Amino acid sequence: MKKIINRPENFVDETMDGIIAAYGDKVKLLNGDRRILLSNYPAREGKVGIVTAGGSGHLPVFLGYVGSGLLDGCAIGNVFASPSAQKMADMIRACDRGNGVLCLYGNYGGDKMNFDLACETVDLEDDIKTKTVLVCDDVASAPKDKADKRRGVAGMVYAFKIAGAAADLGFNLKELVAVTQKALDHTRTMGVALSPCIVPEVGKPTFSIGENEIEIGMGIHGEPGIEVRQMMTADEVADLTVGKILEDMPVEAGTRVSVMVNGLGATPKEELLILYRRIHQVLTEKGIVPVLPHIGEYATSMEMAGLSVTIMALDEELEKLLRAPAASPFYTNANII
Amino acid sequence: MKKIINRPENFVDETMDGIIAAYGDKVKLLNGDRRILLSNYPAREGKVGIVTAGGSGHLPVFLGYVGSGLLDGCAIGNVFASPSAQKMADMIRACDRGNGVLCLYGNYGGDKMNFDLACETVDLEDDIKTKTVLVCDDVASAPKDKADKRRGVAGMVYAFKIAGAAADLGFNLKELVAVTQKALDHTRTMGVALSPCIVPEVGKPTFSIGENEIEIGMGIHGEPGIEVRQMMTADEVADLTVGKILEDMPVEAGTRVSVMVNGLGATPKEELLILYRRIHQVLTEKGIVPVLPHIGEYATSMEMAGLSVTIMALDEELEKLLRAPAASPFYTNANII
Repeated sequence: MKKIINRPENFVDETMDGIIAAYGDKVKLLNGDRRILLSNYPAREGKVGIVTAGGSGHLPVFLGYVGSGLLDGCAIGNVFASPSAQKMADMIRACDRGNGVLCLYGNYGGDKMNFDLACETVDLEDDIKTKTVLVCDDVASAPKDKADKRRGVAGMVYAFKIAGAAADLGFNLKELVAVTQKALDHTRTMGVALSPCIVPEVGKPTFSIGENEIEIGMGIHGEPGIEVRQMMTADEVADLTVGKILEDMPVEAGTRVSVMVNGLGATPKEELLILYRRIHQVLTEKGIVPVLPHIGEYATSMEMAGLSVTIMALDEELEKLLRAPAASPFYTNANII
Repeated sequence: MKKIINRPENFVDETMDGIIAAYGDKVKLLNGDRRILLSNYPAREGKVGIVTAGGSGHLPVFLGYVGSGLLDGCAIGNVFASPSAQKMADMIRACDRGNGVLCLYGNYGGDKMNFDLACETVDLEDDIKTKTVLVCDDVASAPKDKADKRRGVAGMVYAFKIAGAAADLGFNLKELVAVTQKALDHTRTMGVALSPCIVPEVGKPTFSIGENEIEIGMGIHGEPGIEVRQMMTADEVADLTVGKILEDMPVEAGTRVSVMVNGLGATPKEELLILYRRIHQVLTEKGIVPVLPHIGEYATSMEMAGLSVTIMALDEELEKLLRAPAASPFYTNANII
């Protein structure tokens, strides 16, 4: 197995040790627990907490968005596996400042089940109020009439950013739910995959993609996509993904949008830029105005080759929140605003 | 060929179009030339210019470091090929503010030949004063007694950062050369590769690495390393690279150092962090103090799997310059200082 790791069973703990060794002034473990990361940045007294959780193997998702103007905490499981309800409850308790906690995470069965249980526990035991917003941005994972079945992928990064900024500005829990849901209602993602990835404890790819094939709409854990095609050009990939997104979420001429071209792991920045070039062309021809581009690795699947395209349609409020300062060891918008 | 591109011969031009589409407010082409990128950030009147040049396929190196507190300009060639002396001369002219230009680039034959010619040309034709500092940080590429034959790799990012900050502070050309050379005298890099990369116009790997092998010291264009080994653990890779670096550049206990763990393209962030964890342990045990970590993709070879480790030993001046604000579309230290 061509991975620069030690024992596969230590992959997550040692990743977390690396984060603390590097950034221990900015983030911290909850009571030494290597599955719960909390922000160490100063935050306003009484700020509504924002937390997420999910499986490992997707850095910077999820741990990388614990920071200032972003998330207060993140619980992490094994590679591609949900953390336990117990860890989530511990995290929620640590992130409540008396005004409740927003649980903002991807629409996956294990995460939902555990988060629901955790929220019930902290409500009963600690009287902590929580609200849930699910990220379901992947248009390829279910048709529009079953949009609540869709998986959460890179669009969650925009949701983290918008929610984080709103909480900083003093939104209460109800207002925070509303603006985060608005951001997600205006966000869609679609991806393509060129190669599989390897879960360290498995040691070999758990799925395969043919030598000259591209899988349209594959999930970030290798969930089947909607179609396997012969290898496509960058322009064809751009046209397909943007076409599907705009079909699902019509965007009027004159609208300002932020486009994320997200590398899944092994795809070079040059290719992401070549794709962005075409997306920019296509949108501009429709009178849509791309601003605040996010081009890079925001949500990965370890060494998987491929990329996803996310479009968030902005209104004045969302653009202001997207532009608000944010910093974590893995994310800042300081150099793109 | 599994690349998300269009025609291979348009790879560089379309990458540049993507950069301009995304970041055209921050960087610009020189007279529409898609091989010369200039900073669009405000700069102090009379600031000494800093430029680099080299082949494409290494983003964020080189184009990604044109920005504020970094480089004024960058000329770029085809994948892994030097740009022409003519492009370099045009760029130098565009970056001179009357106080000369520092040419700061990696120690490769083609780049040297062309830069030397370009510097001669602008001296004769335009009376522009230039100085050259070569980056030769790769300890694996030649023994210590032939250190001037060493290749320039990820350590150049630290050199760009230090030089950019010093120029902003008003260093003149001679002083700028001195501090940049000091930074490089205190910087060493060593890398390992797990898989090859594919030059788009070639369409297949130009070298190979065995299924269960790791190449120690391979160059970023696939130049042969010093040794091929059976796959190693992360801790073994950390011990080997740090060991070789400290053997070449002894660092006293109590010294503060910045460590860059640089992914070559396909290597997941999790693995870079697992490596950093061990490097931090090893250095801390020696009484060396790691600060300002750089963990991510700073100098790549497209989809090559592998990583490099760079250590820059800091004194008060270098740390101050490393901490100074810097921003380009591809780099900022805002979230790591």
